[in-house]
Amino acid sequence: MSARVPAAVSEVLRAMKPPSGASVAEIQARLDDLTKPRGSLGRLEKAASFLARILGCPPPRLAPRSVLVLAGDHGVTARGVSAYPTEVTAQMCRNIGDGGAAVSVLARRVDARLVIADFGVRVRVDHPAVLDRNVIRGTRDLAEGPALTAAEVERALLAGVHLVAREAAGSRLIAIGEMGIGNSTAAAAVTAALLDLPPDRVVGRGTGVDDAGLERKRLALELALARLDSQTEPLDVLAEVGGAEIAGLVGVILEGARRQVPVVLDGFISTAAALVAVRIAPEAASYLVASHRSGEPGHALQLDALWLEPLLDLDLRLGEGSGATLAIPLLDAAADILREMATFSSAGVATEATSTPLRS
Amino acid sequence: MSARVPAAVSEVLRAMKPPSGASVAEIQARLDDLTKPRGSLGRLEKAASFLARILGCPPPRLAPRSVLVLAGDHGVTARGVSAYPTEVTAQMCRNIGDGGAAVSVLARRVDARLVIADFGVRVRVDHPAVLDRNVIRGTRDLAEGPALTAAEVERALLAGVHLVAREAAGSRLIAIGEMGIGNSTAAAAVTAALLDLPPDRVVGRGTGVDDAGLERKRLALELALARLDSQTEPLDVLAEVGGAEIAGLVGVILEGARRQVPVVLDGFISTAAALVAVRIAPEAASYLVASHRSGEPGHALQLDALWLEPLLDLDLRLGEGSGATLAIPLLDAAADILREMATFSSAGVATEATSTPLRS
Repeated sequence: MSARVPAAVSEVLRAMKPPSGASVAEIQARLDDLTKPRGSLGRLEKAASFLARILGCPPPRLAPRSVLVLAGDHGVTARGVSAYPTEVTAQMCRNIGDGGAAVSVLARRVDARLVIADFGVRVRVDHPAVLDRNVIRGTRDLAEGPALTAAEVERALLAGVHLVAREAAGSRLIAIGEMGIGNSTAAAAVTAALLDLPPDRVVGRGTGVDDAGLERKRLALELALARLDSQTEPLDVLAEVGGAEIAGLVGVILEGARRQVPVVLDGFISTAAALVAVRIAPEAASYLVASHRSGEPGHALQLDALWLEPLLDLDLRLGEGSGATLAIPLLDAAADILREMATFSSAGVATEATSTPLRS
Repeated sequence: MSARVPAAVSEVLRAMKPPSGASVAEIQARLDDLTKPRGSLGRLEKAASFLARILGCPPPRLAPRSVLVLAGDHGVTARGVSAYPTEVTAQMCRNIGDGGAAVSVLARRVDARLVIADFGVRVRVDHPAVLDRNVIRGTRDLAEGPALTAAEVERALLAGVHLVAREAAGSRLIAIGEMGIGNSTAAAAVTAALLDLPPDRVVGRGTGVDDAGLERKRLALELALARLDSQTEPLDVLAEVGGAEIAGLVGVILEGARRQVPVVLDGFISTAAALVAVRIAPEAASYLVASHRSGEPGHALQLDALWLEPLLDLDLRLGEGSGATLAIPLLDAAADILREMATFSSAGVATEATSTPLRS
C-alpha cells in the first residue's frame, strides 16, 4: 500500500510558513525589561516567547479559542486491550455534547468553544451537538492487518483540515483532544513505528487496564509492529496502525499551523498525531505547545522527540483534551505578562545593583 | 528573649477546628461516580478532595477570592545577600499598587482582589493602593542579633490576623505572597532553624544573586544559626531571624485556617511562614495547599515537612504571590469537576467492563 498526501492537504503543506510574529531577540528584550528579575517567571516566560513568536509581541488576548475533540473506535478492542467497552466512545461523545464530561466543564471555565466530532465511531452517535465527520464505523484490528485504507486516511486528514476551517476559523488558540476506547494502543503503535521503539517502551495502562489487559495490549502491539516491519512513511503508518480520530488530528494540526495558530497538544494520543504531522511538515513543530506530561510512559518519549516541555505534570490520564484545556489559563497568563506588565523605566523600579544576577 | 503568642492570636488558636466540609469517603464516592476512569484526573482529584473537605462536596465556586501580598525590608541586605538594592521593595509595592507587577496582571486575570500591605518596609511607601500596616522600618541584621523584638513579632502577627478580617472576610480562597529584598535569607534561616537543617541545604539564589552574593548569604546564615543555637520555639525563631512580612503571613495563615478558608501558599518565603504557623497550630495544615515548587532548593524540603505536593513546577522564582495566583485556575477546575461533571448513571455511560481498572 502507499497512502499519498491528498491534493488538498498538499496545498496546506505548500502554504505553511515559519512563525511571523516577533523575533526571539525582540521578545527577550521585552521580557527582560518587565519589572521582575530576569527569567524569574521560569517556564511561563518560555510559553510567552512561544506565543509572541507566532502572534507578535506583545501577543493579543488568546480569544476566541477552541477545543477540538475527535472521536473514533478501534477494532483492536476486540482483543481486550482496554478497561472499557467500545460502547463508551459513543456514550462519551454524547456526554461531551451534553456538557457533562470533564472537558466540557474545563472548556466552559476558560470560555473555549468545544467542538466534538465523530471521525470513526462504530455506531451512529446521533446527537445534535456531535458533528458527523465519520469516515469509518470503527477501524479494523491493527494486530491483524491495516486499520484503515489509504482512502480512509485521506478522508480523515481532509475532514480534520476542514474542521479547523469551519469550526475554528477565527480562533487565536486551538486545543486538541480525542475520545476513543482502544486508541492508546493505536497511538502506541504509531509512536513505536515512527520513533523506532520496542513495544515495551510505549505500552501503558491507558485509562487503567489491568495486568492481563496490559499483556494483551503488548501482544497486539508486537503483532502490528512485526507486520509493519520498518515501514515509517507517516501516512502508511497511520493507515496500518492508526485511527480515524488520530488521522483527523493530524489534519487539524497541519491546518492550525498553516493558519499560524498555536496548537495545544493534550496527552499520548494527540501527541502521536503531532509526531505524524511534524514528519509530514517539519514547520508545523513551531506551532505546537505541550500542555501536560501524562502518566502514559510513551508520552515523555514523544515529547522528547518533538523537543517539547509540558507546562503541567498532574498525572492525568483521561484524554478528551482535558490536559490541553487545563493549560489554557497558563498560556493566557504568559500572554498577559507580555502585554500588561510594567517595564523598569515606566514603573521607576531599580534594576539589579549590588550583584550581577544570573541569566537563566 | 521569649516571644509569646499574643492574647488575640491565642483566641484564633482556640477557635481553630478541623475541616468541617465533606468526609473523605463521601468525596471519593462522588469522584468515582463522575464520567471518567477512576483517578484519571490525577492530582486535580487530590485538589478537589482538599477543597471539598473544607468547603463541602461539591464545593461552591471559589469566589470571591483574595491575593494578600505582605512587604518588608531586611537589615541583612547590608551584607550584599541580594541581587537588588533594598529600595526595590518600596518601588515594587507601588508597582503592585499601580497594577503593573506580575502578580497584578495574574490576579486581574483570575478575578482575585489583590491586597498589598506594608508590614515592614524601610521607607514610607506612600501610595493610595498600598495599605500601611508597618510595624518596623526594616528589620535589624539577623546575622548580628535579633531581627525583630518580641513586641514587633506580636504586632505583625496581629496585623496579619486583622488583614484577613478586614480585607478578605468574605473570601472563599486566600492566596498569599510577599515582597521583600533579602527575605529569602530570612526565610532560609527560619527554615533551617525549624527543620534543623544546615545552611547549605536551604540557601539559594533567591531572585538571582551571583556566586559571591550566594557565599555572603551562606555566611550570614551561619552567623544567625550559630547565635540561635538550637532555639526552635517558633515565635522566638521569627523574632531572631524572621521578618515583619513573614510574621504577618503567619497571622494571615492562622486566621485563614480559623475561618476555614483554603490558603494557597506561594514559594519559599510564604512556605517558611507556613512552617511557623503549623508549628504553632498543627490544625492549620489542613487548610494549606501548595501552588508550585520553586527553584529555591529549600522549598522542596519545606513542602516535604508539610506533606504538601505542589500543583505546578514552572521554575518560578519571583515571589509576590505569583505562583499562588497562577494555581487558582487549577483549583477552580478541581472544584468545577466535582460540581458540574455528569455521573455514570445520569449520563448513561457504561463503567469499566472488559477488565478491572487500576485504582490510582
